[in-house]
Amino acid sequence: MTEKAFQAYYPDDLSHCYGCGRLNPHGHQIQSYWDGEETVCRFTPEPYHTAFPSYVYGGLIASLIDCHSTGTASAAAYRAEGRPMDTDPPLRFVTGSIHVDFLRPTPMGCTLELRGTIKEVKKRKVVVSSTVSANGKVCAKGEVVAVRMPESWTP
Amino acid sequence: MTEKAFQAYYPDDLSHCYGCGRLNPHGHQIQSYWDGEETVCRFTPEPYHTAFPSYVYGGLIASLIDCHSTGTASAAAYRAEGRPMDTDPPLRFVTGSIHVDFLRPTPMGCTLELRGTIKEVKKRKVVVSSTVSANGKVCAKGEVVAVRMPESWTP
Repeated sequence: MTEKAFQAYYPDDLSHCYGCGRLNPHGHQIQSYWDGEETVCRFTPEPYHTAFPSYVYGGLIASLIDCHSTGTASAAAYRAEGRPMDTDPPLRFVTGSIHVDFLRPTPMGCTLELRGTIKEVKKRKVVVSSTVSANGKVCAKGEVVAVRMPESWTP
Repeated sequence: MTEKAFQAYYPDDLSHCYGCGRLNPHGHQIQSYWDGEETVCRFTPEPYHTAFPSYVYGGLIASLIDCHSTGTASAAAYRAEGRPMDTDPPLRFVTGSIHVDFLRPTPMGCTLELRGTIKEVKKRKVVVSSTVSANGKVCAKGEVVAVRMPESWTP
């Protein structure tokens, strides 16, 4: 795994996301890393992130997939250009669409592992597939179409 | 609009959902109602529910669509059987899949309105389309395939 999370490279002005902003003290502050050709993120839900007792809320799972995928999109875009994530111009992505299939209830009380796979990298669009596993079993899988943030939005 | 929210009919054991459980003090506690053939839910994001400054976090939008749609599925299933939501057997739904298209950034600082439309009602599956609007403009639209919760899960 790489040492520095993708989200640690986001400029301060774009680090307030509830899902992944390191400057949002109320948020999930997820961190995503390269692991070979895949990306990985580990997250432990809070006890109140329930759907019903003992199982994780699907909206949280969708949120994790969302932010892990846009982070993965950013990392993939830099990698495609052969340059590190702390170089200009910044390549930030927002979610154009998300699809999640819930395959089985996701148990509480353990750390979830998200693994992202890059399906397509274009200049303005990156498609990322992600799985969410608990105790080694895939509980949900998602696909995000990430769209490059217009340059006027980036600092 | 009907007077009592769909979620107010959920039995206590199924009212801990982070998105819509009235017994989850940490959660969003959304409330959904019939408005003719559509369903409606209004929700005001907290200031920290940001994607980036001034705009609402997409994961929250997906979460609202998720819970409003499963609530709508439950209400639609009772309506299809011609009986009120406080009668047995309980008809509770979980999310089989969710798809959300983000059409434009959703502004902070206003109340969002979700409107749900029932696309299909079968015994074990209800499909619901929802829009999320801010200041009268549709910012996102979603589709949820809601699957009836196995009877062994319901109290």
